[in-house]
Amino acid sequence: MNASNIKIPDKMLAVRQYKAGEKLTVESIDVPRPGPGEVLVKMAASPVNPSDLKLIGGGYLERSYPFTPGLEGSGTVVASGGGLLPRLRMGKQVACTPDPKGDGTWAQYMKTSAMRTVPLPPHIDPVQGSMMLVNPMTAMAFIAMAKTGKHRAMVNNAAASALGRMLIRLTGQYGIPLISIVRQESQVTELKNMGATHVLNSTHDAFETGLTRLSGQLDATLFLDAVTGAQTEQLLRAAPRGATLVAYARLSGEPIRVDPGDLIRDEKRIIGFQLGNWMETKSILYKLRFINRVKKQMGVALTTRVNRQFPLEAVESAISLYREHMSDGKMILLIEKKNQ
Amino acid sequence: MNASNIKIPDKMLAVRQYKAGEKLTVESIDVPRPGPGEVLVKMAASPVNPSDLKLIGGGYLERSYPFTPGLEGSGTVVASGGGLLPRLRMGKQVACTPDPKGDGTWAQYMKTSAMRTVPLPPHIDPVQGSMMLVNPMTAMAFIAMAKTGKHRAMVNNAAASALGRMLIRLTGQYGIPLISIVRQESQVTELKNMGATHVLNSTHDAFETGLTRLSGQLDATLFLDAVTGAQTEQLLRAAPRGATLVAYARLSGEPIRVDPGDLIRDEKRIIGFQLGNWMETKSILYKLRFINRVKKQMGVALTTRVNRQFPLEAVESAISLYREHMSDGKMILLIEKKNQ
Repeated sequence: MNASNIKIPDKMLAVRQYKAGEKLTVESIDVPRPGPGEVLVKMAASPVNPSDLKLIGGGYLERSYPFTPGLEGSGTVVASGGGLLPRLRMGKQVACTPDPKGDGTWAQYMKTSAMRTVPLPPHIDPVQGSMMLVNPMTAMAFIAMAKTGKHRAMVNNAAASALGRMLIRLTGQYGIPLISIVRQESQVTELKNMGATHVLNSTHDAFETGLTRLSGQLDATLFLDAVTGAQTEQLLRAAPRGATLVAYARLSGEPIRVDPGDLIRDEKRIIGFQLGNWMETKSILYKLRFINRVKKQMGVALTTRVNRQFPLEAVESAISLYREHMSDGKMILLIEKKNQ
Repeated sequence: MNASNIKIPDKMLAVRQYKAGEKLTVESIDVPRPGPGEVLVKMAASPVNPSDLKLIGGGYLERSYPFTPGLEGSGTVVASGGGLLPRLRMGKQVACTPDPKGDGTWAQYMKTSAMRTVPLPPHIDPVQGSMMLVNPMTAMAFIAMAKTGKHRAMVNNAAASALGRMLIRLTGQYGIPLISIVRQESQVTELKNMGATHVLNSTHDAFETGLTRLSGQLDATLFLDAVTGAQTEQLLRAAPRGATLVAYARLSGEPIRVDPGDLIRDEKRIIGFQLGNWMETKSILYKLRFINRVKKQMGVALTTRVNRQFPLEAVESAISLYREHMSDGKMILLIEKKNQ
């Protein structure tokens, strides 16, 4: 099928929000036109991620309203705005993310920089492919950080999340011991059943002493912190000397409070991590190799459990179900049913 | 003069503390005997540093009581406990620090690892030499961090301190723009008079906006924070994207509280710094070169203002005067009057 034969309509369905925190609407708006360096992606699927909830709630990223949410997805490149990379992408199945302040993936079409699209490996379906650019890349970035920083072992909280499960499988493959931290006893069992060796429940009284002992034994000096707030202080206290704490999300919504003595005396550090920022510091060659490593693990260590699929029109149901069952797999907006 | 001719007495005067927070006494105790790898230093001079006040106050470093305070000083190596380095040090004028849990420099003699002694450059007197291993080394370490981390400019608070003044001179020599932060208007004038280009008063209403603008303009991405506590959050907010905040003391005594979003979104980081920890990560060759760079700057950029000198017996007066006039130069314990 030649992409240039695809007829692009003038109008499309898109999820819209008119004000931070307000209900989403689904309406018919103009299909955007890609400019130089940009492509138009006919969207196939897009997940609901914690970052989407933050974005819809407001205050997380700047947006001019109304706008279309959705921070990652998959689809087919159906138009090029000109330039080498956009032309190379024409007709390709891609994973994609929106431009920093641009309209997102929850629409039938999205315009974005060609740089923000990655061709999908042929064995990956659009649903798994729609979740390639956030969690799998982040999980692989943490592996890269562990290797570069010569960390012998890692700790990750919010470990029952999609990312947490990827890390369990990925560290298993790379032979890096991982301590997973969860908040429910059922999650301890669940993660152990899927192969996790070390799982701690942060609601237990003995949590901090247990973490101190285990991270000391394993020499776990890379702490991945998606919760932040009060747990950051606990993690830092428990961490061995010289440890690095990577703050990569703020699920608790609380500020971080730490004893400077812990940092100074024991040479510990807190580093903010955002995938986009991290990738920006890398060379083109590094990025290509890195993305290839991610692609090879797609469908292997890097798979995401899907809970349910929804049409674009049911976006509000998808979101409210996701809020209630965040650790039970992803809610997917299936924008285009595949008919080959 | 041959050091082996020096007669070592059995008893010596030493400052002693019997319990954290309690008054110091000066008493006659046994002169320690150096073991293998150790030397005995006949102490000449020792400053009162903020870290001494912390140590005497308790809770800063573990000690078994009674013990002798004093975390740096100068003197002459008069005995070796055996080993190559101790023998090489015999008879040398040195700057020295105590072993981590050992008795300190506020005594007529101190036993310490030969590794913790550095021969003084011939042009440096025992008083300036007694202050070579903490502030000058720390100031030079910050220059090294700026160069290694490719930071274009730096920020330092508590800038009226001995270290702050060294940094003003040293960054001037190295051509690294420095923003100095003080708490009094008189210190703004004083530091500008000694050559500081950028001095901000943190008690002014416009402080944070001023710091944001200036650090942005200069691309100051290395923030040296001796105050910590509430000021850390202010500094981090004001810091440009990608900035590193180095917590190296906790003069405020308060915990650090930061918004994880500041860290994550703008790729900022907080690093704990302690000179000993930092040096430990370096190779022997690096250390030798580094110490030579410090020695060359001793008496040039790296000089310390002395306020008053006291005999060992007047240690309590030295401490209480220092508490009242911390930014007006160092109080020195002159343990041995030089008679050549």
